[in-house]
Amino acid sequence: MQRIGIDMDEVMADTIQYCLDLYNRDFRMQVAIDQLYGKNLFDVIETAHRPHVHNYFQSEEFFANIHVMEGSQETVRDLMTTYDVFVVSAAMDVPRSFSAKFEWLRQHFPFIPPGRIVFCGDKSIIAADYLIDDNIRNLTAFPGEGIIFTAHHNMHETRFRRVDNWDDVRRMFLSSAG
Amino acid sequence: MQRIGIDMDEVMADTIQYCLDLYNRDFRMQVAIDQLYGKNLFDVIETAHRPHVHNYFQSEEFFANIHVMEGSQETVRDLMTTYDVFVVSAAMDVPRSFSAKFEWLRQHFPFIPPGRIVFCGDKSIIAADYLIDDNIRNLTAFPGEGIIFTAHHNMHETRFRRVDNWDDVRRMFLSSAG
Repeated sequence: MQRIGIDMDEVMADTIQYCLDLYNRDFRMQVAIDQLYGKNLFDVIETAHRPHVHNYFQSEEFFANIHVMEGSQETVRDLMTTYDVFVVSAAMDVPRSFSAKFEWLRQHFPFIPPGRIVFCGDKSIIAADYLIDDNIRNLTAFPGEGIIFTAHHNMHETRFRRVDNWDDVRRMFLSSAG
Repeated sequence: MQRIGIDMDEVMADTIQYCLDLYNRDFRMQVAIDQLYGKNLFDVIETAHRPHVHNYFQSEEFFANIHVMEGSQETVRDLMTTYDVFVVSAAMDVPRSFSAKFEWLRQHFPFIPPGRIVFCGDKSIIAADYLIDDNIRNLTAFPGEGIIFTAHHNMHETRFRRVDNWDDVRRMFLSSAG
């Protein structure tokens, strides 16, 4: 059985959209996700606001409230019938997020066994055939085939096969259903 | 550079000794580590005491107070000059232990970068040349060469090269210093 590693933030969890929602609320702004095209979040946030936004990521509550990426639950569940699926999240930058991320996965993806969840810093440690990830650093480090999941910041990257959404993931990995 | 994964509990951290210390204190017992030879902890603890001892592992404080395994700090630091070292801990059984384990590592092994720490359930996901671990299930799942670190419960296992302590690890991996 082939193994697929799946990143969490911006692949299973709509982290940046939730962050923008909070930012727009807290500063009465109207930044839309399209304005992040080819950029990182902190490129479009006013300098004076950055410490406040940075603090979002230090809070356990933040991770608990992120929305599920559209279509991810159904497709992950279907992938699990044909592939050995692991969730592979880089959580080491925010140690306080471990428990919140774990609980989030248990709540929204209860069909993924806890033993199939990995928190790591460097994805070169992941032994899998594929890694679906939005982060170019992770995809480059990964020893198997990296599949890039489209996010605002990675639009210009061309080195990896690309999926724009969970329908694309389904088509790529479960082609008979595509 | 070859990569070594190192398990945390009973390899870097003297988990069972600390657990026995608490047990002996709480129930005025005098169970010695030798009595666990070839057995698991719960085999030697009186049935009525098991729920109490089980609860030790549910507490963040428990993980914060475990002693460092003798010689581990010096040898891990020296291994890092020649090998790519990752800490690989199975923390998924006790989700509340993530932060405590992470903080423990930062305190006692500050020279290990956070990006070199992995929390997982199933060590078949670990891409490394060696895994030093006391747990037979982990060693069997691991795709590289498993090195068994002697613990009371694994005395009868013969399928892996064995190290009894951190001096043995040093001799095996840093032979010029042996």
